[in-house]
Amino acid sequence: MGNSFGKQFKISTWGESHGGGIGVVIDGCPAGLEIDISDIQDELNRRKPGQSHITTPRKEDDQAEILSGTFEGKTLGTPIAILIRNKDANPKDYNHLKNVYRPSHADYTYDAKYGIRNWQGGGRASARETIGRVAAGAIAKKLLKHLHNTEILAYVSQIHKIKAPITPENVTLSAIESNIVRCPDQESAKKMIASIETAKKEGNSLGGIIGSICRNVPIGLGEPVFDKLKADLAKGILSIPATMGIQFGSGFEAANMTAGEHNDPFILENNNIKTSTNHSGGIQGGISNSENILLSTVIKPTATISQEQNTITSTGTPQKLEAKGRHDPCVLPRAVVIIEAMIALVLADHTLRNRCAKI
Amino acid sequence: MGNSFGKQFKISTWGESHGGGIGVVIDGCPAGLEIDISDIQDELNRRKPGQSHITTPRKEDDQAEILSGTFEGKTLGTPIAILIRNKDANPKDYNHLKNVYRPSHADYTYDAKYGIRNWQGGGRASARETIGRVAAGAIAKKLLKHLHNTEILAYVSQIHKIKAPITPENVTLSAIESNIVRCPDQESAKKMIASIETAKKEGNSLGGIIGSICRNVPIGLGEPVFDKLKADLAKGILSIPATMGIQFGSGFEAANMTAGEHNDPFILENNNIKTSTNHSGGIQGGISNSENILLSTVIKPTATISQEQNTITSTGTPQKLEAKGRHDPCVLPRAVVIIEAMIALVLADHTLRNRCAKI
Amino acid sequence: MGNSFGKQFKISTWGESHGGGIGVVIDGCPAGLEIDISDIQDELNRRKPGQSHITTPRKEDDQAEILSGTFEGKTLGTPIAILIRNKDANPKDYNHLKNVYRPSHADYTYDAKYGIRNWQGGGRASARETIGRVAAGAIAKKLLKHLHNTEILAYVSQIHKIKAPITPENVTLSAIESNIVRCPDQESAKKMIASIETAKKEGNSLGGIIGSICRNVPIGLGEPVFDKLKADLAKGILSIPATMGIQFGSGFEAANMTAGEHNDPFILENNNIKTSTNHSGGIQGGISNSENILLSTVIKPTATISQEQNTITSTGTPQKLEAKGRHDPCVLPRAVVIIEAMIALVLADHTLRNRCAKI
Amino acid sequence: MGNSFGKQFKISTWGESHGGGIGVVIDGCPAGLEIDISDIQDELNRRKPGQSHITTPRKEDDQAEILSGTFEGKTLGTPIAILIRNKDANPKDYNHLKNVYRPSHADYTYDAKYGIRNWQGGGRASARETIGRVAAGAIAKKLLKHLHNTEILAYVSQIHKIKAPITPENVTLSAIESNIVRCPDQESAKKMIASIETAKKEGNSLGGIIGSICRNVPIGLGEPVFDKLKADLAKGILSIPATMGIQFGSGFEAANMTAGEHNDPFILENNNIKTSTNHSGGIQGGISNSENILLSTVIKPTATISQEQNTITSTGTPQKLEAKGRHDPCVLPRAVVIIEAMIALVLADHTLRNRCAKI
Repeated sequence: MGNSFGKQFKISTWGESHGGGIGVVIDGCPAGLEIDISDIQDELNRRKPGQSHITTPRKEDDQAEILSGTFEGKTLGTPIAILIRNKDANPKDYNHLKNVYRPSHADYTYDAKYGIRNWQGGGRASARETIGRVAAGAIAKKLLKHLHNTEILAYVSQIHKIKAPITPENVTLSAIESNIVRCPDQESAKKMIASIETAKKEGNSLGGIIGSICRNVPIGLGEPVFDKLKADLAKGILSIPATMGIQFGSGFEAANMTAGEHNDPFILENNNIKTSTNHSGGIQGGISNSENILLSTVIKPTATISQEQNTITSTGTPQKLEAKGRHDPCVLPRAVVIIEAMIALVLADHTLRNRCAKI
Repeated sequence: MGNSFGKQFKISTWGESHGGGIGVVIDGCPAGLEIDISDIQDELNRRKPGQSHITTPRKEDDQAEILSGTFEGKTLGTPIAILIRNKDANPKDYNHLKNVYRPSHADYTYDAKYGIRNWQGGGRASARETIGRVAAGAIAKKLLKHLHNTEILAYVSQIHKIKAPITPENVTLSAIESNIVRCPDQESAKKMIASIETAKKEGNSLGGIIGSICRNVPIGLGEPVFDKLKADLAKGILSIPATMGIQFGSGFEAANMTAGEHNDPFILENNNIKTSTNHSGGIQGGISNSENILLSTVIKPTATISQEQNTITSTGTPQKLEAKGRHDPCVLPRAVVIIEAMIALVLADHTLRNRCAKI
Repeated sequence: MGNSFGKQFKISTWGESHGGGIGVVIDGCPAGLEIDISDIQDELNRRKPGQSHITTPRKEDDQAEILSGTFEGKTLGTPIAILIRNKDANPKDYNHLKNVYRPSHADYTYDAKYGIRNWQGGGRASARETIGRVAAGAIAKKLLKHLHNTEILAYVSQIHKIKAPITPENVTLSAIESNIVRCPDQESAKKMIASIETAKKEGNSLGGIIGSICRNVPIGLGEPVFDKLKADLAKGILSIPATMGIQFGSGFEAANMTAGEHNDPFILENNNIKTSTNHSGGIQGGISNSENILLSTVIKPTATISQEQNTITSTGTPQKLEAKGRHDPCVLPRAVVIIEAMIALVLADHTLRNRCAKI
Repeated sequence: MGNSFGKQFKISTWGESHGGGIGVVIDGCPAGLEIDISDIQDELNRRKPGQSHITTPRKEDDQAEILSGTFEGKTLGTPIAILIRNKDANPKDYNHLKNVYRPSHADYTYDAKYGIRNWQGGGRASARETIGRVAAGAIAKKLLKHLHNTEILAYVSQIHKIKAPITPENVTLSAIESNIVRCPDQESAKKMIASIETAKKEGNSLGGIIGSICRNVPIGLGEPVFDKLKADLAKGILSIPATMGIQFGSGFEAANMTAGEHNDPFILENNNIKTSTNHSGGIQGGISNSENILLSTVIKPTATISQEQNTITSTGTPQKLEAKGRHDPCVLPRAVVIIEAMIALVLADHTLRNRCAKI
């Protein structure tokens, strides 16, 4: 269970890293939306491994095929099924992992929960699972763009100790895409790349923080009480592997402020009700208020490394583990794409749900 | 919509701050659990206003009545409905708020979403809504205690600039309950109380951070992919009013660590598989690994204050707003109880769901 | 579990026949609908026992109280909670049923499933449970009336061997309500009443068939594949106690027809696409086609009777069972109201869901 | 929406009759169940067109591929995705149907609901959609067989005017499979085949009734109130194309009986609590009582015929429609397999859900 997300724009993903493939079914995309396979493929290409020398050298083509739900370039209102075949799978590469638990991986918890585990790669816990989310997110983005010209941007704001000085309101897609680390501050990007190169050489990996901004979000998204917009965004993003925390607007800094400082005064601007500050991060009472939605996510350094580590086998015997071959020294440049997808899925879901708020 | 939470241990809450009352329906509590009204009332008393001089002076009795689902002291397996009548409601107190939007409140977003709003108090966005969660959480706690002796503790770890030096593993319920601010470090508690007293005098309010630890959590809770334990905890907690962020285990500090430092090595301890560190916060691959679950939540300073503020009316006219009378200078000592309830609800839900993991 | 119904207009019911009361929470009613308590009370009065000499003599007042979700006569978009207190409960009346299983009742299956049972009355399996459905159905009817002037009528078409000659298209509410058996054919009604009087004297009970017609149903309700309109109507109606079957349009008679006879030809009528016959009962491909929706439901003779019956105790000992006192010789005149409610709930749910069908 | 079914053993189907293929994702099958592709393929072969001269001549191979969720012959507890590619699709065959509404088909209602329709075949309303159900049902059957040795049989009991004299308790799989019409009474089967042959020659089609019996159903399946076992079975079966009604146990005949005749007395048999009659069809209070579950379903004559019919175009112009080429004179022999699948899906879902009934 637990492989579906959303109530009105609902996705269900399936697939292990080794097996027939990875896929997603989208149920609830309204009929009449123009969709081209390139909409999906472009996002998958932003996510795929092997894009640059600072990511995993694993080669994956990740070619998407739309199996249903569209006709003559438009959505039918029926489920959209998307399939991405697995390639580059060499199960023998994993033979040494059959009976050993990699530290901070899901090997042990899957075994304990299910009594069985596909040890050829990460199985369902592999980052390949996020392919389905990115494919579905591409359609959600298209829907949001069509309906409200909504724009969702995520970007790297910190890698290990390097924090980029970024004003979210000024971030553009082209600034993000202009370097391989996807940090809109070009000076910081250079330092981040150098830092990742060092980690790679040392067989280590680095974490960091990803910022996000959503523009042109319609007012009224989010439902009291449990499906507040921030609650659903938090669930969506914390369901991404390697995430350790999330904050909205002022976030953890809010602890240090008084209400007198933190409250966002309402003002009238071009006959629209706006706020003069945005500590709320675009969400008040759990509902979008038409200000930019601001959030940031912390990603731990990914667990797979090429250094020797202590662990135990499934029967409890201590063992030295040395990850062979390739590892990904920093997932953040690619995780940016997954976070954008999850945000898009939440916003698309609530945009549709909002159609039933009033009589 | 959005007023239900959980899939197997499912709750639905209802009620505005002013109206007939507040309630919750629990659907999915297994038959045969011993329940006494005092289990629920004790938790409601920990949450209720007016407990001490550092909280809101509003007097609310919050007497719970179980309307269905139990028989001769045990659950029937049918829905458990709990009703708490509203009292102390003086709608006239709110007349001046009928057409004005309080900064960082939900007044404006509710109006925009629904075209109508119960302006007599906070309506559905009022903190009174959390009464239903606390009542249901009391039953979830009882279930978890019965099945696995699970213990869930939340406590204040920071108020405004005062950070308490706390080792979560050492925190006890009695240390938490031994002062009115619910901070297990007694020295810090005194400073926090003084700080809140000052804010109260100034008509201001303070935020802070609440830490949480869950002990004796069974292994295997949480489902790939979207219903990871951390994802559902994040959703539950971020659905609480005034929360701005959440972090698990190492949290935002993970950004500064390498994988070599962050990975938790597996060890064998008394014939059980454990980890020698717990940066993962008890959750790996989204599934509980039997280590303590660790998380912390940031709460903004509550928006209602007694200082004059700038805002506008519903028709856009600038207006000075002075909150009359009572305000709550710091909600954290009571929010502790709500966070415990939400954690209990998530753990109870996943404990039951886990019964279907294996054949 | 299983106490909620609907996805967008969602209701959750709770309550046993003996206990604090019976209730329902409606989550998803759009904001801005005018609601008066009399809308609900009028329908409850049509359902309540003791209306006439051919129903149970049990006296129940069934006074409804709206606890939340409305403000100044309109819905708020928040959950509408409705409470009906239990009265006339004399638990001692049921002492003799504590350890004995009444034939064709739910006593045994509840015990087997839950290991515990509220033996003071029918517990959750009591017909009192349907009060919550009728209350919620009253609001669903109001919504459908407001949006599309939709009219839902159910009526008794057969009691035991007496079949009324009825043309559904001609049935009116006033014809239904003009006699105590709620059969729109007045001649048949007289015979039915006599038949029920006889059964009552004999301590027996009678079943029959309830027909239904829905007029002004908007086109497009129902979703492929599993949530076809007929599938959701079937689920809703077969969830009513004592129902044994349902048929749509031509129903079981369709088995005797060829496609050449059964197909409904499309025609143009006042510039609207209609069909010249309506064997489909207003639903094609699972979606409403704007013709009248036609269905009928069979209700078994209710199991509680005043004749002596053979049964066994919970420990397997044979025992003679004689239902003491009051019994209901025919539930159909009241079941009409419950069927209308369930149809209204399904149509309201799909009317709202249909808002997301197209871009 | 509406393309998912079940809560704990949940399936989501996708695919149009013309497009990349048809598929299903099963979320919630417990880990550790032995599954072989032949389990699925065998059931698909029972469903596929072209099995005999009394069904559609359309040739479909319907080869299933398991894409995920199994490993070394066992289920992983992760989603099981199954893909069946479309073949034999010649879109040009349907050019004449682009702008015309076939009587009693879903062409018109889909157009009205979605504003777009895949007119190359039946799209999502095609009977090909049921392939996914049958594939998932095969796994549900395997699960039920493994856990409780449950057996689910459906069979043809009536074709047009020919009613077979069948005692459900005596029906065997081999008797059903011993003739091409899947009627366990061999004499009736011959007459049915002759009747279908005649209809085929006349370009017409026939409907009928399908009976079902489930043996070794564990006690306690079904949940009050809305998810009664009969309610979920009714929904599942009425979601199958061409179904017009369903009845359980005594069904519509219950209208003609008194409670004294209809009630099923409890008896003790080999120390088990049983009933001496089974008018309830194995379900009491919506919960299985361990007697055989008995139900029957009416199927209308399928709408596609080779006779000339009157209809109109999408712009309202009257037009003669002559279905070209192949048509299926009777779907019942194949519908038997779909009904078994839907029953299996409901029973599997409730078997798992029942694990949470008691503490």
